[in-house]
Amino acid sequence: MGQVQQHTESALEELLPEADIAPQRLHAAMRYAVLGGGKRVRPLLVHAAGALSGAPRERLHRVACAVELIHAYSLVHDDMPCMDNDVLRRGKPTVHVAFDQATALLVGDALQTLAFQVLVEAAVADDAASQLSMVEMLAQASGSRGMAGGQAIDLAAVGTQPSRAELEFMHIRKTGALIRASVLLGARAGRTLDAEELQRLDHYAKVVGLLFQVVDDILDAEADTATLGKTAGKDAKNDKPTYVSLLGLSHARALADDMLADARATLLPFGPPAARLESLAEYIVHRAF
Amino acid sequence: MGQVQQHTESALEELLPEADIAPQRLHAAMRYAVLGGGKRVRPLLVHAAGALSGAPRERLHRVACAVELIHAYSLVHDDMPCMDNDVLRRGKPTVHVAFDQATALLVGDALQTLAFQVLVEAAVADDAASQLSMVEMLAQASGSRGMAGGQAIDLAAVGTQPSRAELEFMHIRKTGALIRASVLLGARAGRTLDAEELQRLDHYAKVVGLLFQVVDDILDAEADTATLGKTAGKDAKNDKPTYVSLLGLSHARALADDMLADARATLLPFGPPAARLESLAEYIVHRAF
Repeated sequence: MGQVQQHTESALEELLPEADIAPQRLHAAMRYAVLGGGKRVRPLLVHAAGALSGAPRERLHRVACAVELIHAYSLVHDDMPCMDNDVLRRGKPTVHVAFDQATALLVGDALQTLAFQVLVEAAVADDAASQLSMVEMLAQASGSRGMAGGQAIDLAAVGTQPSRAELEFMHIRKTGALIRASVLLGARAGRTLDAEELQRLDHYAKVVGLLFQVVDDILDAEADTATLGKTAGKDAKNDKPTYVSLLGLSHARALADDMLADARATLLPFGPPAARLESLAEYIVHRAF
Repeated sequence: MGQVQQHTESALEELLPEADIAPQRLHAAMRYAVLGGGKRVRPLLVHAAGALSGAPRERLHRVACAVELIHAYSLVHDDMPCMDNDVLRRGKPTVHVAFDQATALLVGDALQTLAFQVLVEAAVADDAASQLSMVEMLAQASGSRGMAGGQAIDLAAVGTQPSRAELEFMHIRKTGALIRASVLLGARAGRTLDAEELQRLDHYAKVVGLLFQVVDDILDAEADTATLGKTAGKDAKNDKPTYVSLLGLSHARALADDMLADARATLLPFGPPAARLESLAEYIVHRAF
């Protein structure tokens, strides 16, 4: 895991424009937003899924960077004053604090563009047609019916009491869609899985996507700001509906346990090649306990 | 021209998610931002260039929509309070005024994603490898070394006295890059042009990209808000360097004339198939006179 994280960092460093290329301030801010932090959960999932389909490492680095750039852009925009208005991210001032709001807006915009550029400018699949469908998958996961749409639903839900189904509908988009895409894109960079394998992998990806959010909600309620590297207790303060506010802390933990068991069971038929996917599901849960 | 504009409108209407699909408010705002306005200069350029390479109309509609969605996203973000802080666009309240800032931020984000989705989810070239390189071209034109970068340079230039070379460096990115991409992508949707044709078309695209900005600067200085459908006199008020502030109005007009002549001369060897590209260069200039 440490190796993938390190290589992701190097790959991102290489793919991001140097800070001495004009516009220098924008490029410096893009590097600030992306480099030197983050658990790189999505890149880890890309590589773990790629291990299942025997995908070449170079392709996986590229796919991992594309997904991580989408994630990084969303964090920069989500932190802005008109959204979550947060000043701390990964233990550092957020981009609009360290630079300014206009730069933060453009950083997010340009990171999203770079994600798509990275995914097309070299081969990440056996043929170009497959690669096009991978770009389509990343776009669907990121757009108004995926991540960006989830963020819109989340904003609209502040101060309301959504049902568990409504909370899930939101999280499947806000966090789940890109997590799921990370797993499926990682697998797509290698041999073609058969329909049954694909269905199982997709189930794992969906479960882990929601699991990630459940754990995030638990962490926000439990951990302190220093441990998180971002402002803790924010959800309650902002009157945001979460799994913790909906189910209570102990039921939210029980849900996380159930989902981890589901993810493990789904992977069983793959045998040893799925070991890294299983470890990652455990890693995601154990952040919280 | 009217026909292309109408068909672009219908194609955009079809490609944008319906306003009754969740998240409804986001989708309504995306449609508000894109539909029912705009001169559709970039789609017109896509179709005119496609006429040169015999590209099928369906492909051109798709390419035109992708480019227009990038343009529309950039307008929504540029109008936001932390950027140009404008309240009027295409004769209507801007998105952050009609909706709210958070929605405007997400609208821009989701429109950019949709642009890339539109460009990959159906064929727009003879083969998938060509299509991948078209996606790469759109990304390069839009990102930190293209449109978004130009916007960053523009913001940094407020209140300064850049040289003409510096002004050009900015405009080549801010407006020129996407205009140029419109022309080249339209052509790429058809038969492969030979190296000499491609070089000529690229020269035309670069000239028209800058010409568009020169004319925009003239219009901002000369026309009234009602005619423009957006706030006039904004550049002078914001102390923004423009071709008019740098060269004076009559020299800016002379420059536009020279550039139009250059564009026409470049197209000459193409003969009749370039007629629409020539008309468009004239149309762009005559907006201002």
